[in-house]
Amino acid sequence: MPQGANKLLLEMFTIFVSAKLGGELFANLALPAVLGEIAAGVLLGPHALSLIAPTDNIQAFAELGAIFVLFTAGLEIHPQDLVRVGQQSLRVALAGVIVPFVLGFAYLRIRGTNLHEAVFVAAAMVATSVGVTAGVLDELRVLHARFSRIILGAAVFDDILGMVLLAVVVGMASGGVRWLHLGITFLEALAFTLFMIFVGPRVVHHMRPGLRRLSTQNAPLALSLALCLMFSWASERIGMAAIIGAFFTGLVLADYAPEWELGPPVRGIHDMLAPFFFFAIGARLDIGLFSGGVLWTACVVTVLAIISKLAGCGLPVLNEGWPTALRVSIGMVPRGEVALIIALIGLQMNVISQSAYAIVIFMTAITTLAAPLALRWVLNSGSLERVGHVG
Amino acid sequence: MPQGANKLLLEMFTIFVSAKLGGELFANLALPAVLGEIAAGVLLGPHALSLIAPTDNIQAFAELGAIFVLFTAGLEIHPQDLVRVGQQSLRVALAGVIVPFVLGFAYLRIRGTNLHEAVFVAAAMVATSVGVTAGVLDELRVLHARFSRIILGAAVFDDILGMVLLAVVVGMASGGVRWLHLGITFLEALAFTLFMIFVGPRVVHHMRPGLRRLSTQNAPLALSLALCLMFSWASERIGMAAIIGAFFTGLVLADYAPEWELGPPVRGIHDMLAPFFFFAIGARLDIGLFSGGVLWTACVVTVLAIISKLAGCGLPVLNEGWPTALRVSIGMVPRGEVALIIALIGLQMNVISQSAYAIVIFMTAITTLAAPLALRWVLNSGSLERVGHVG
Repeated sequence: MPQGANKLLLEMFTIFVSAKLGGELFANLALPAVLGEIAAGVLLGPHALSLIAPTDNIQAFAELGAIFVLFTAGLEIHPQDLVRVGQQSLRVALAGVIVPFVLGFAYLRIRGTNLHEAVFVAAAMVATSVGVTAGVLDELRVLHARFSRIILGAAVFDDILGMVLLAVVVGMASGGVRWLHLGITFLEALAFTLFMIFVGPRVVHHMRPGLRRLSTQNAPLALSLALCLMFSWASERIGMAAIIGAFFTGLVLADYAPEWELGPPVRGIHDMLAPFFFFAIGARLDIGLFSGGVLWTACVVTVLAIISKLAGCGLPVLNEGWPTALRVSIGMVPRGEVALIIALIGLQMNVISQSAYAIVIFMTAITTLAAPLALRWVLNSGSLERVGHVG
Repeated sequence: MPQGANKLLLEMFTIFVSAKLGGELFANLALPAVLGEIAAGVLLGPHALSLIAPTDNIQAFAELGAIFVLFTAGLEIHPQDLVRVGQQSLRVALAGVIVPFVLGFAYLRIRGTNLHEAVFVAAAMVATSVGVTAGVLDELRVLHARFSRIILGAAVFDDILGMVLLAVVVGMASGGVRWLHLGITFLEALAFTLFMIFVGPRVVHHMRPGLRRLSTQNAPLALSLALCLMFSWASERIGMAAIIGAFFTGLVLADYAPEWELGPPVRGIHDMLAPFFFFAIGARLDIGLFSGGVLWTACVVTVLAIISKLAGCGLPVLNEGWPTALRVSIGMVPRGEVALIIALIGLQMNVISQSAYAIVIFMTAITTLAAPLALRWVLNSGSLERVGHVG
């Protein structure tokens, strides 16, 4: 009877069903279902048919959906398996941050863009958003493959590096980088990462006997969900993305997931919430807002954003064979929230123009839409069965 | 990085963990875990420690939590099993509506309350809120027992009758009942109920072969979730409670739940969201707001609300033996949202006083807290194994 609730349910139903229909349609066309869910958001969202403008409540579901996409991904990867590709991931992340930044900065300076604007737009070209990639990898059931682990490990380092870069860029624009503060933030993120990968699983191991003595039904699941919420929050608290904390939580629990039967219930939460995440990504994309002059720059920046990640993330793992290098580098192409946040901060600080902001939006849109397509294509042209095994 | 998201995650974590800790504590004291989750809400909520005032987003999770409590309950009950206790449920609901209304109305009139206020408060005493009861039945794993089915069936009829009563009461207070409109609303609700119980399962049966041809992963789960959202919305749309629509959806799918492996994923969503529902119930309860004069009336109204449901819902099923009658009648005692909505409408129409509104809040609080305790107690004093089987 409360009218608000009624509106929420209708909105949830519309988004859920349209996302699932979009996914089904795309899957039948041999395209990634995740892209279909995003396309449903583009189509029904405020920039096209304008049937649905995601409310604050839907955004909350979307945020939680992203968290469960990465939590699910983490649950399928054992910490040791991530450590085994740690060096590769680090190289991919480092070069994948440096190359886009340098290429983007150089192009914009050559075009005559002022220093601060060039720095901000180049910084926005850096940060990979791994949510969409994780969705595609999950859909194709290759999350446990070696290249997937390299991607997810690199996404962790990429997130830390992106955070540092943002702090430097903001510091430069506002008169001075607070190096001590930045150093502490960096060490916090590093300590958090090392703790989650090396110490976390042991803590859980020691909690196991106690869990059995609890009276709460499905106590292991309750504990897992509590940890996921806590570490997602903690991750954001120290300046990293919430989804990275969720991914870490999955890692920490991966060894105990079979024993605790975490798979099906967490999959249920994932399936309920993930469509809101992908739909919301689509609803945010505005592809038709560009005039002639900006469009050209936007296209060049986007092409550079793609090429630079392909080179920066592919070359460091060329020793793994070119199929892996190609898969890893395409998986690192999507930009998203973090890029938009960097551009938004630049806009709010009055160091970048409205058109530079629009360029970043364009770049996130194209990389978000193109990467799943390319990833699915290179995975289908290889043998999925072959890449599907742990290496 | 967005501050809003961070706050949401911290709030979700705090609510989830405190509810679970409350549940664990109560379970260890041989009290219902559900009551512990409610108690956590009372304690941390705005009327006590005031640590957490559930935001709009949390309310959305709570609303969805209630939907999944009833969806889960529905999944465990086959439509035929509900039909088999249909007559008993109808008798329980009818007497359970008439007795509280007559008793409440008579007492208030004798006390000298004016006609409209007496009618509204009496109407608020009528509507059972089955969410808490369903939680306790689930926790004790007796959802499939005969008395549980009688309760849930009665809750459906109770919801329809409550809706009709509300329309009559509002019509009286605003100058005239729109009987035609009321008749249509009643027939809509009846048609919806009959459709969901008798036709729905057959529709799903015919959709089964098509489901297998879908490319969407976990297509049966996606369909189930879509139906749950749709029927919850539809139910509210025609004036019934969303949770009744969710319960119907569970019923419709109950026969296919094992084949589609709906149990564990839906349980996961349930376990994620239900604590927000119970916590939010607690956060709303304000037990310490009563002055002397009102407190006395509030206590009498509450005692009448309890006794009248015990009598009204117990006597019609006395032929099933007194243990069943006792369990059914206690299960029907909790009042909640609908009672508050009726009182709120009365307040907004200026036909009931602030103190009458407070009396209704008091009554919902005590019945919500007392029923789980009593239910657990009578179930423990009987043999749970014995009542646990389908009769």
